[in-house]
Amino acid sequence: MKVVGSIEELVVWCDRYRAAGLSVGFVPTMGALHQGHVSLFLAAKAECDRVVVSIFVNPTQFGPGEDLEKYPKTPESDLEACRRAGVDLAFFGTASDMYPRHFQTWVSADELSRPLCGRSRPGHFRGVATVVAQLLNLVKPHRAYFGLKDYQQLLVIRRLAMDLHFDTEIRACQTVREGDGLAMSSRNAYLDARARQVAPRIYRALLAARALAIGGEQRVAQIRKRLLEELQPGPELEVDYAEVLNAEDLSEFEGGVASGSPSGILIAVAARVGRARLIDNLVIPPS
Amino acid sequence: MKVVGSIEELVVWCDRYRAAGLSVGFVPTMGALHQGHVSLFLAAKAECDRVVVSIFVNPTQFGPGEDLEKYPKTPESDLEACRRAGVDLAFFGTASDMYPRHFQTWVSADELSRPLCGRSRPGHFRGVATVVAQLLNLVKPHRAYFGLKDYQQLLVIRRLAMDLHFDTEIRACQTVREGDGLAMSSRNAYLDARARQVAPRIYRALLAARALAIGGEQRVAQIRKRLLEELQPGPELEVDYAEVLNAEDLSEFEGGVASGSPSGILIAVAARVGRARLIDNLVIPPS
Repeated sequence: MKVVGSIEELVVWCDRYRAAGLSVGFVPTMGALHQGHVSLFLAAKAECDRVVVSIFVNPTQFGPGEDLEKYPKTPESDLEACRRAGVDLAFFGTASDMYPRHFQTWVSADELSRPLCGRSRPGHFRGVATVVAQLLNLVKPHRAYFGLKDYQQLLVIRRLAMDLHFDTEIRACQTVREGDGLAMSSRNAYLDARARQVAPRIYRALLAARALAIGGEQRVAQIRKRLLEELQPGPELEVDYAEVLNAEDLSEFEGGVASGSPSGILIAVAARVGRARLIDNLVIPPS
Repeated sequence: MKVVGSIEELVVWCDRYRAAGLSVGFVPTMGALHQGHVSLFLAAKAECDRVVVSIFVNPTQFGPGEDLEKYPKTPESDLEACRRAGVDLAFFGTASDMYPRHFQTWVSADELSRPLCGRSRPGHFRGVATVVAQLLNLVKPHRAYFGLKDYQQLLVIRRLAMDLHFDTEIRACQTVREGDGLAMSSRNAYLDARARQVAPRIYRALLAARALAIGGEQRVAQIRKRLLEELQPGPELEVDYAEVLNAEDLSEFEGGVASGSPSGILIAVAARVGRARLIDNLVIPPS
């Protein structure tokens, strides 16, 4: 596995792969790799001749007061995870390479950035879209892989790739979970023992809400009510949002009735558990 | 010369050129081609194996009440101009291809978009940056050519290419002028006989201001004063702006003294003459 720390080297290697007629799969990450990331590497490995992983804690997707400084950094075990998964090229990005002096060009999505995490984290998706546009231009992958756990991010990036005509197929991969259902996340490292016990409540609440909807309940208010009942908001689990939205465009259901959605129903939660802000979601596909 | 009307065909042709190891030069235009555009085609022709020209009146760079609807359209003489200049591929873009339903991803430059035309035309450079990002991703040219007449646009696009790591060299070409100095522009078609007589005053004023600065005058206020004296603002020529700025980043000179600028001095004018809003500029290189 090649490890590079400059965008010049990254470009040289990726250009070389592509010029040799090889297909390139790309997984952008912020490091602190877990099984969720590894599942993306393996999906890329299965479909592409070469797999490129970027490891860069992108400062522009963090707001003031968020966890940029304390975001977990585990470069050695990250490299080991890449190696074991058969990654061909690992790129460590630096802020001075990605955001040089006078940097000022931003990519943003309008409607998709507004609800859910966009409301709680203004500027977050602008940072995400900008760094993904940069990385797609550097790596020029045939396919790029993103996890469904960050569902809103996936929609923003799909839209970005389509709207700006990036020549990259955006692939979505299932959320990977711990045995008790907690979605894998680098931020789970912030959970102490008690918070770790509380955190799986999010997934259980999503399951309960989904069961209700699949059972025939179409009223958004009722589905949300069940979601909140199961989340048991309180000091141990502070709900940021608990929403039921159109899975295609994150719009609200007209008349508060989630029926006949041609694109499925998204049930999404963000909650603060201990020191971590966790997100998770389930999508009910159109019937 | 190949003429295509869909982005799919455009991509196929450009990919074919590049895959064959040929260098691709690209000139994005809004049609109504004149000698200024032709000079860009010839510059591309001189440096690249294949030259691609896009013709698309980009709606998102026009504000409400601007001249989108009446922007001149001359597709047949445009094709003839392309053919004569040796262009290999002409692409006619459509709004439905470039801005499909649910389009919502925008590219924007911060500081560079604020002064000059950015102040008079809010959203203009966001439209420009977005369509250029789209076109660069579709054509994937080795080099793209822009005229110095649209100086602020050139800086925005250079920054865009650098910040988002587009693999395209941005090339700048000199403004082409009529015999009496009027900068060539598609919008000159709006000028009636009287307005056409008045319009060259812009270039003469730029020359006078430049002469003053080159002669040793460093006070921005004095250079602007000369500029305005020569422009003779009035009903025939309404000045939108007449500015003396740092040519590198469009910042104002500290203390109003244009001295020791390592990046040159930009003298820029926008004025309404008859039914046309015209822009022009001169750059005094660093001494």
